[in-house]
Amino acid sequence: MKKIINQPEDSLAEFMRGFSKAYHDVVALHDEPLHFARAGGATSGKVGVISGGGSGHEPLGGGYVGVGMLDAAAPGQYFSSPTPGQIHAATASAHGGAGVLHVVLNYTGDVLNFESGAELAEMDDIEVSTVILDDDVAVEDSTFTAGRRAVAGSIVAMKVIGAAAERGDDLAKVTEIAKKTNDAMATMGLALTPCIVPTQGEPSFDLGPDELELGIGVHGEPGVRRVSMMPADDITDALLDAVVKDLELSSGEDVLLFINGLGATPLSEQYIMYNRASDQLEAMGVNITRSLVGNYFTSLEMAGASLTVMRLDDDLTSLFDAPVHTAGWRAGM
Amino acid sequence: MKKIINQPEDSLAEFMRGFSKAYHDVVALHDEPLHFARAGGATSGKVGVISGGGSGHEPLGGGYVGVGMLDAAAPGQYFSSPTPGQIHAATASAHGGAGVLHVVLNYTGDVLNFESGAELAEMDDIEVSTVILDDDVAVEDSTFTAGRRAVAGSIVAMKVIGAAAERGDDLAKVTEIAKKTNDAMATMGLALTPCIVPTQGEPSFDLGPDELELGIGVHGEPGVRRVSMMPADDITDALLDAVVKDLELSSGEDVLLFINGLGATPLSEQYIMYNRASDQLEAMGVNITRSLVGNYFTSLEMAGASLTVMRLDDDLTSLFDAPVHTAGWRAGM
Repeated sequence: MKKIINQPEDSLAEFMRGFSKAYHDVVALHDEPLHFARAGGATSGKVGVISGGGSGHEPLGGGYVGVGMLDAAAPGQYFSSPTPGQIHAATASAHGGAGVLHVVLNYTGDVLNFESGAELAEMDDIEVSTVILDDDVAVEDSTFTAGRRAVAGSIVAMKVIGAAAERGDDLAKVTEIAKKTNDAMATMGLALTPCIVPTQGEPSFDLGPDELELGIGVHGEPGVRRVSMMPADDITDALLDAVVKDLELSSGEDVLLFINGLGATPLSEQYIMYNRASDQLEAMGVNITRSLVGNYFTSLEMAGASLTVMRLDDDLTSLFDAPVHTAGWRAGM
Repeated sequence: MKKIINQPEDSLAEFMRGFSKAYHDVVALHDEPLHFARAGGATSGKVGVISGGGSGHEPLGGGYVGVGMLDAAAPGQYFSSPTPGQIHAATASAHGGAGVLHVVLNYTGDVLNFESGAELAEMDDIEVSTVILDDDVAVEDSTFTAGRRAVAGSIVAMKVIGAAAERGDDLAKVTEIAKKTNDAMATMGLALTPCIVPTQGEPSFDLGPDELELGIGVHGEPGVRRVSMMPADDITDALLDAVVKDLELSSGEDVLLFINGLGATPLSEQYIMYNRASDQLEAMGVNITRSLVGNYFTSLEMAGASLTVMRLDDDLTSLFDAPVHTAGWRAGM
């Protein structure tokens, strides 16, 4: 295991400490129970928006806490759900008096623990609403999931939902936009190599030297098919076809096209996927009005990427464009 | 070679096309000779700032063209210098009537070709000034370099220099700030794995399964020493000691601390390095007033990272903080 770490069991605490020191003007790391919250605390009168999930997907987690996105985030151990206590604490940190939306990625442990966390928060008289994200069209049900998994589209959802809360929408309206956002997007990914969780020391799955897996999950959950290496255009077409079919996309519609890198795949390869997907969408008469390319939802050093398409209307576009100030989201892009 | 590409020889053109489509509101890709320029063209009356160098270091190149950083960039083939013709064209695209600064990374081919490009531009009556960056303290002279190499500190230099031009400084003043910036910074890096240039198909160098190399260059140029895997704290201390010694840093000074990922090294490992380096600098009485962590100057999918310290004064701090809008620089961080 070649990693820049000290003791594997210390790596999570050490990276979170480094992260929170580097971005102390934006985000604060709270202990017992562990969670990230905005450096300035909750915003009075604003709906709070929180999320949470396993670590190892950085900048997801603390990297999306800040003005225009999340108010707080509950980070679990690597690839493991946060506890109800963490979710409760993050909810309390995010509460500015107008209730809190839980943005939950559809993994069974996360869903259950967010339910318990919401119950704990409601005992404190904090109104909680929940949206469950499930943008991955690859498979129904998976190793850790009933129904579809939540993958890279979650980041765009957090951006849009956070912007709705920031402009002053109430809890019911923010929840409605969150559901609409999830319905408007579809994602599918692939991996070329596994990753190694520091505390496990072994690759998360096996892939042959000439193999790739289409539709694989961000923790290595089984995908749609394992195939021999294919040209980038064929890979991209396979992902795009599934996404377009799921969305029932048609000519004349406006969309966001998002290529997400899983960790070790260079930006140049992500741009090659973008190039092919944009040519294909344009040939269908679909208008790409917004774009995003980069490592927004990673799986440590996994090589691979995903493709997300999100149907846009004027409101979603303006929420996507709204100001944001976090460690992980690139303003203006 | 597991990469998301089509034909290796097409990969450069395809990724540049994808990049320029995704960021068409910020940057334009010009053909014959190939270069990137701001989508809005040169700014009348402003000093133009250009850079250039081999591809494979994305987002370096087109990713730093935009308001607050570069006006144009000349991208070579993977890990190869741009031609004088490309540099000439980028200079012309950047010229708003107030002259153009060439920000040159200290590699022999780049230095020579920028000299020729400057001569061509001067025949067009464009005044050209040049600064050569050489922040890497690891070694004097290297495979492709006389003197020190230019590495990740170059990105911070482009940010600061671009901001000086944007606020209206004249060519002499921008050049002076560029030299001051280069003198104020020092970098050293390490690699855990090589990368594979698509058009070569072979790893750029060999490293054993338990080896790392300290002080290695971003193209795999020999470093200071090849050692068995070490804890992150020891790696960080080795880099920081060399950087602090070079800068003759002392208690009470203000600095920027920048950890740059080379490609496949997760953000979490970069934060662990940040955590150690910030503890060490604080123990020395040095004040970290600005921070940067992420993949700003990559080497395709190489695993590794570098550590840069830059001495800050009020002017450099305000230039670092100035507004920026490019594909690759995260605003506000």
